[in-house]
Amino acid sequence: MASATESDCIFCRIASGEMGTELIAESDQHVAFRDLSPQAPVHVLIVPRQHYASLRDVGPDDAGVLADALLLASRVAGEQGLYDGGYRVITNDGPDAGQTVHHLHFHVLGGKELRAGLG
Amino acid sequence: MASATESDCIFCRIASGEMGTELIAESDQHVAFRDLSPQAPVHVLIVPRQHYASLRDVGPDDAGVLADALLLASRVAGEQGLYDGGYRVITNDGPDAGQTVHHLHFHVLGGKELRAGLG
Repeated sequence: MASATESDCIFCRIASGEMGTELIAESDQHVAFRDLSPQAPVHVLIVPRQHYASLRDVGPDDAGVLADALLLASRVAGEQGLYDGGYRVITNDGPDAGQTVHHLHFHVLGGKELRAGLG
Repeated sequence: MASATESDCIFCRIASGEMGTELIAESDQHVAFRDLSPQAPVHVLIVPRQHYASLRDVGPDDAGVLADALLLASRVAGEQGLYDGGYRVITNDGPDAGQTVHHLHFHVLGGKELRAGLG
């Protein structure tokens, strides 16, 4: 279920500019900023301006937001110099995946050889 | 750069049905099948029918394929019983990320508590 913003959602507050977070890139539908606890030399979050709790909450009518997210992820990877080495894009949905902020987001990681194990 | 299919690409051959791979789901633009070396109890690959080497090769004109991929990933997660526990969706682009098949694909993982570290 999507809603415009949620006042108690930290990513809604970042996306709205309320937190003064430094954005490294943005698109019509997303903002991109550095993860505060980076797990790689480059670790950027791609966050939709509109609130979706997680991937499962984006339906076909809103699917354009998913395309926009991955296009921005790829663009950020290039701008951050990751096209030579490579990069990984991840979204976590639910507790087994370790989702901690319940606002859809994509991690872009690179700048080192990432762990081979995915699970 | 996209091309319809590449004869020496294993994922093009799977997507075309040439390999007889059991599909667990499909959409207009993607097929979904189990990873042969699963890294979690559920480990499914979402593979576009059209050949793209990796995420960076999908441009804005083709972005619909990215939306379709993530919608199918979410649907497969639900069909595989992962909505209660959760699931992770990953795409790897380039050597640092461990991309081994040079045809865009998304991993859907779940069925256990996944590793916390993303990098």
